[in-house]
Amino acid sequence: MTRPSTLDAIGEFGLIRELQKHCHALRPHVIHGIGDDAAILHAPTNESLIASTDLAIEGVHFDLAFESLQDVGYRTAVANISDIAAMGGTPKFLLVALAVPPSYSVNGLRTLYRGFKEPCRQYGVSLVGGDTSSSKSGLFLCLTILGHIRPNRALPRHGAKVGDRVYVTGTLGDSKAGLQILQRRQTRKAHMKHQPYETFLKKRHVRPTPRLAIAQHLSQNRLAHAAIDVSDGLSGDLHQLCQASRVGVELWAHHLPISRQCQAYAQTHRLDPIDFALAGGEDYELLFTTAPRNHGKVANLAKRLKTQVTWIGEIKPKPFGLKLKSESGVCRNISIQSYDHFSTNRPGT
Amino acid sequence: MTRPSTLDAIGEFGLIRELQKHCHALRPHVIHGIGDDAAILHAPTNESLIASTDLAIEGVHFDLAFESLQDVGYRTAVANISDIAAMGGTPKFLLVALAVPPSYSVNGLRTLYRGFKEPCRQYGVSLVGGDTSSSKSGLFLCLTILGHIRPNRALPRHGAKVGDRVYVTGTLGDSKAGLQILQRRQTRKAHMKHQPYETFLKKRHVRPTPRLAIAQHLSQNRLAHAAIDVSDGLSGDLHQLCQASRVGVELWAHHLPISRQCQAYAQTHRLDPIDFALAGGEDYELLFTTAPRNHGKVANLAKRLKTQVTWIGEIKPKPFGLKLKSESGVCRNISIQSYDHFSTNRPGT
Repeated sequence: MTRPSTLDAIGEFGLIRELQKHCHALRPHVIHGIGDDAAILHAPTNESLIASTDLAIEGVHFDLAFESLQDVGYRTAVANISDIAAMGGTPKFLLVALAVPPSYSVNGLRTLYRGFKEPCRQYGVSLVGGDTSSSKSGLFLCLTILGHIRPNRALPRHGAKVGDRVYVTGTLGDSKAGLQILQRRQTRKAHMKHQPYETFLKKRHVRPTPRLAIAQHLSQNRLAHAAIDVSDGLSGDLHQLCQASRVGVELWAHHLPISRQCQAYAQTHRLDPIDFALAGGEDYELLFTTAPRNHGKVANLAKRLKTQVTWIGEIKPKPFGLKLKSESGVCRNISIQSYDHFSTNRPGT
Repeated sequence: MTRPSTLDAIGEFGLIRELQKHCHALRPHVIHGIGDDAAILHAPTNESLIASTDLAIEGVHFDLAFESLQDVGYRTAVANISDIAAMGGTPKFLLVALAVPPSYSVNGLRTLYRGFKEPCRQYGVSLVGGDTSSSKSGLFLCLTILGHIRPNRALPRHGAKVGDRVYVTGTLGDSKAGLQILQRRQTRKAHMKHQPYETFLKKRHVRPTPRLAIAQHLSQNRLAHAAIDVSDGLSGDLHQLCQASRVGVELWAHHLPISRQCQAYAQTHRLDPIDFALAGGEDYELLFTTAPRNHGKVANLAKRLKTQVTWIGEIKPKPFGLKLKSESGVCRNISIQSYDHFSTNRPGT
């Protein structure tokens, strides 16, 4: 007998049995995982609970024409884990709800779950349950992550103070460049040469790194006033942080960390690498602010954790707005270019 | 200036600001609610954490042609709360992720949130955050509920023992009858009379009751071996409980609690009320099993909580299967009639 290959062949309960095999419970944290009305988990002792939920919808957040289900699983789980990182917390448990067309292959879903499990294993997260449903229009994912954080140590968006220095981890714009390369591969002509920067940029898109370690150290040592992860793009996320903190910001264009691969990509496609870094989403780098006196400590931490951290600007009073200063000293307003789900011509304001 | 009325007019950030107003944080449980990367919550002290996630999709789980957005919100939140009830836990925090077509009205979403908040207020649950996205195909909801339970007191599905008595709260089939009445109202002819049972049955569908109090008492006093909430229909949920516990069951047809309104509805439509009670989903009643020696305690608890509890059968060894015994002593196999998302002609086995 051949293995049933689509969901309508194995039915809902067949799917649930299949998914149970993929649940990944790290004892002793999980008391009772998938297979009941709810999961029972060890509550954090003397810590606060931290929770975040994220949607990922086919045709809105991802396109299976140029991305594998494993990549989608990985990236969605990292987006969720990164929300906990941005607060300085430790992720522990993941719940996955998925609505899927009945024509989907069971193997496809196994691949998706391999994608979820990869970062879960890497960052100590247990996949403890979820929900399943049919969908009439593509794959629909909703991931919820639970974790813990020491009381009063969260890195909120609203804590930035005038005079704070603004830092960002890693490099910016790589993920957006990687996505564009994947999209273009669809229509690539045979004579078009593979560029040496492509592998790096594609990997930055499909295998982003949540900045857990540095965020946790910043939180535990009270080294940051405010933090957010760069999921919508630097301009959009910095705008969110400034709005929540009621402050303005001056960014220095020539300080923005842009990888040589992203520089090369921008050059090939005649794009301004600065604009690209400002607008590029899904980098999942950590953006944070701290008092100038902490500069040495931040530099030491970065060195110890082997994490690139760049000082990119300074928090200003609210009336200053959001400005970008060029190397020659010219200031211009930063336009908010993050994606708005409900309006294509509207900045996220 | 008139108020913007659709989501594409106010944009994603306008929507988030709107939804923030509806968040309902019961202090001191919520440390930091909506508006950051994650919510920060008081972890249960000396208790286990309990978590469940539920999808509700337009065209699969609900139809706005005969149900208001407020009803959808209410019912979806109760379905989620009921999962915590079925374990004997206390619900505390709700996260709402919603994908919504840009053409939706802002007022419609306010109504939806009124629906979420109604049972949240009633059962002490704080609405603490979520996620928003656009959707190309109707409203898509994913609710995650977090709560707590005393260690080792959960009511699992897998604990039923041979010889246990099987009980159910309330009455069965009302919600399904209510749904059918709502569906038929669409095509009702002017001469068709409003039946006196309709108001009760419709209310049972749109305002179900999660059985929190009795489940918590059963859990705290170790009075039940196994429990599940009747969300898919008695036959389907009992099948789940028996499969998880590796047991069979004998149900007594003449003991099944069916309201006089549901009886009247079945009579009008020439339906067998027993089959209707077995197949009717979304009642959110509590189905549980306990040792025969606890019968008196269960009866006293029911009386004290003013909750109808009916003894409907007995747990048998696994080879017995799932059988229904008529008043005259004739036994027949119970067919599993719960809804399978991926196969319309397949019982949920």
